[in-house]
Amino acid sequence: MPATLKYNTKQRAQDRARILQILLTNKAVASGILGRLPAPDVRTPEQDIAEIVTLVERLPAPDLADVLEALPTEERHALWSLVKEDKRGHVLIEAAETVWDDLIEDMSDKDLLKALRPLDIDDQIYLAQYLPRDLMGRLLATLPQEERAQVRKVLHYDKHSVGAIMDFEVITVRADVTLAVVQRFLRLRGKVPQNTDKLFVTTRNKTLLGELGLTTILLHPPETPVLKVMDDNPTCFAPEDDDEIAARTFERDNLVSAAVIDSSGKLMGRLTVDEIVDVVYEETDNDLRRMGGLSAEEDVFAPVTKAVRARWAWLAINLCTAFVASRVIGMFEHTISQLVALASLMPIVAGIGGNTGNQTITMIVRALALQHIQAGNYSFLVLRELGVALINGIVWGGVMGAVTWLLYDDPALGGVMTLAMVLNLLVAALMGVLIPMIMTRLGKDPAVGSSVMITALTDTGGFFIFLGLATIFLL
Amino acid sequence: MPATLKYNTKQRAQDRARILQILLTNKAVASGILGRLPAPDVRTPEQDIAEIVTLVERLPAPDLADVLEALPTEERHALWSLVKEDKRGHVLIEAAETVWDDLIEDMSDKDLLKALRPLDIDDQIYLAQYLPRDLMGRLLATLPQEERAQVRKVLHYDKHSVGAIMDFEVITVRADVTLAVVQRFLRLRGKVPQNTDKLFVTTRNKTLLGELGLTTILLHPPETPVLKVMDDNPTCFAPEDDDEIAARTFERDNLVSAAVIDSSGKLMGRLTVDEIVDVVYEETDNDLRRMGGLSAEEDVFAPVTKAVRARWAWLAINLCTAFVASRVIGMFEHTISQLVALASLMPIVAGIGGNTGNQTITMIVRALALQHIQAGNYSFLVLRELGVALINGIVWGGVMGAVTWLLYDDPALGGVMTLAMVLNLLVAALMGVLIPMIMTRLGKDPAVGSSVMITALTDTGGFFIFLGLATIFLL
Repeated sequence: MPATLKYNTKQRAQDRARILQILLTNKAVASGILGRLPAPDVRTPEQDIAEIVTLVERLPAPDLADVLEALPTEERHALWSLVKEDKRGHVLIEAAETVWDDLIEDMSDKDLLKALRPLDIDDQIYLAQYLPRDLMGRLLATLPQEERAQVRKVLHYDKHSVGAIMDFEVITVRADVTLAVVQRFLRLRGKVPQNTDKLFVTTRNKTLLGELGLTTILLHPPETPVLKVMDDNPTCFAPEDDDEIAARTFERDNLVSAAVIDSSGKLMGRLTVDEIVDVVYEETDNDLRRMGGLSAEEDVFAPVTKAVRARWAWLAINLCTAFVASRVIGMFEHTISQLVALASLMPIVAGIGGNTGNQTITMIVRALALQHIQAGNYSFLVLRELGVALINGIVWGGVMGAVTWLLYDDPALGGVMTLAMVLNLLVAALMGVLIPMIMTRLGKDPAVGSSVMITALTDTGGFFIFLGLATIFLL
Repeated sequence: MPATLKYNTKQRAQDRARILQILLTNKAVASGILGRLPAPDVRTPEQDIAEIVTLVERLPAPDLADVLEALPTEERHALWSLVKEDKRGHVLIEAAETVWDDLIEDMSDKDLLKALRPLDIDDQIYLAQYLPRDLMGRLLATLPQEERAQVRKVLHYDKHSVGAIMDFEVITVRADVTLAVVQRFLRLRGKVPQNTDKLFVTTRNKTLLGELGLTTILLHPPETPVLKVMDDNPTCFAPEDDDEIAARTFERDNLVSAAVIDSSGKLMGRLTVDEIVDVVYEETDNDLRRMGGLSAEEDVFAPVTKAVRARWAWLAINLCTAFVASRVIGMFEHTISQLVALASLMPIVAGIGGNTGNQTITMIVRALALQHIQAGNYSFLVLRELGVALINGIVWGGVMGAVTWLLYDDPALGGVMTLAMVLNLLVAALMGVLIPMIMTRLGKDPAVGSSVMITALTDTGGFFIFLGLATIFLL
């Protein structure tokens, strides 16, 4: 029996790995699937293709989404062409945004709409809104009148709001019936939406009165009235709420689902933990990418030209900041020509500053994201980081100063080294705290390009401080 | 009604913010709580203290954990001293590891064990194992014989395994009973563990046969036998499974809970989505921190001395790599003394390489974490990154070469600049892909210090390439 029980996850993982293996070890397989003739000297891939066809048929949509994400463009196209139409919508909604572009490339608007049809209406809307092609008009046209009105209502919510990720399908019950009635109603209904752990108790005009957990129904006698056992003070969200803050609340309260209500208290839909898990994955991932100036959309398998375009802007910015740093050194070329050792030593000052600054800014960006930092503790954090920098600067700056002294037999140069390191570490600490905080104050995402900015400042600052001090004290 | 409904989350958020505000705007409040005399010229904080006492009483444990995480040490101690003993265990389990140290500092082993007592046994064990104090022996001594055996069984699981985060409390039913019997059994039981969305169907000796969703119980007629409606092929985990991989499976299959079975198919416990959400937060957070050489345990509010110690090692490593880079430049001091412009230009080459390398390595580390990269596509990725680097190198290197030519009126210097940038971008791309992959092959976490390593390589490489080329072509 355990063998059967384990089949599920293990076998699926093996199936996923097998598809990747076949597609990646023999280029001819993808060509074969896509109908291009394989080169005559390549082993004919018919068997492999047949195997993939079987695997694709067997694997559920989320697994296919994972495999598609892990393939380069050509192989991705080949695999996608094997996915049956009725599965494509589900694969799309499970797949990362980074691969959408590739997947829908060869599909007509009509095919795409057909693929969306098996999905829940909220998922259809989400895809229609955010797929890299505007389908909203055509989707609306296919919907019945009443649904169209519902859709129009949620269209204006921001992509990172609760409204954009909420689920419309909710089960509502009245407060004045008994649990027996509720249970009969559920049996009649025959099925419940995924991740249903509670029903919503509303008035006739949809005003939310409370929530009725499935466990509550099961644990209480059937004659109990809903009103007596419902939770009349549940955690609710507004559609305008930020999705990351909703995620924190889900985590804090261990929620599986929660009601979304409009400003008048009417039930609009619900938020489920599976969407929240996606938000959490996406949120932290994006922070990581944004710090280094990587776009949230860049796919690790995107073709070269796309990747070049995605990184173009940040590279240009980086080049400009590097150029500024270079010009700062240029100001001191006379000093360097007098004492060429400065050229060897200056990257140490800049590098240590960059490293420390990046550590500080990473901590602050994450602490801001997790809402650990409030207005009241700004000054504490600045002072703390300055304290850490001062100690590290004195200790390690002292070490480097001594090494410099020994190396160049020049105590004054050693002293300048130590002083420059202390000062640049202080700059790094100060900026590492202030940049994300100022960005937040200005209403910007503190993660975006923070690493690029801090490195620019500590480089330029490091060169200026070190060469400036050298000019004053050594010439 | 909507006002009441919203009370919950909104009011709690306000309460949390209010505690932080009071504690952070007037240092005397924390001193007052901790029984130290406030300075005579500070406004007497009695009222503020009284307000905090009320708020602490009102706020649930997860909210208190959040507030504690957002406070500096002194204020944290003050707030913790106000948390009632019966709430402390719950706050501890909800709080980030980074603050455990601070919280338990003033508690005796006895107090701690008392605080743990209200928790589920799995949470008690988790804390006893991972709190920065060894409580396991004393905890075991307090447990009844049978529980002790169960505990001993899970003690050897790794911290990042399913075994360490699983929940022991499961409801099991037999396959040969009807749903009516199950429902009667549940009513008799009176309550179910949190996040119960399914019961587990087992044989008498605990071998897992299948799962019975609560919705299944509600949707089918009471006379249906469990055997007929149970899911006999559910997703299960082994206690040795990696928690991050389990999290991916939860995300893929939209699970709320899942069985954990031992190698013989016996049910050991279950994994719930609330633990999974914590794993996801922690996982991505740690990746971010590890890349820059920040320890996973560093708390943004840790006192200076602790922060210094936490960053000591990486700073030393960074200093060594910077020193190596400096010595590489030192090798070319003769070249620089002939052409001092090289000193100004070399950081551009190094900086661009560092930026590109960091972008590449971030993408690869995340793709590895999300299991998007398999052995089969290594070479594709290397070629792709090299392609991107080549194009960017030629374009931006060309631009910088032209600027250099204009600036120094030296076409050869411009040529060297372009060539050096192209080469260093290639080094950055190659190393950005290879470092994390080699680390993974060696069984190491590819995130740890990856940013520090790539920067060291692109700095040293950049200086060597640029100054080397200059020595060959310009002298």
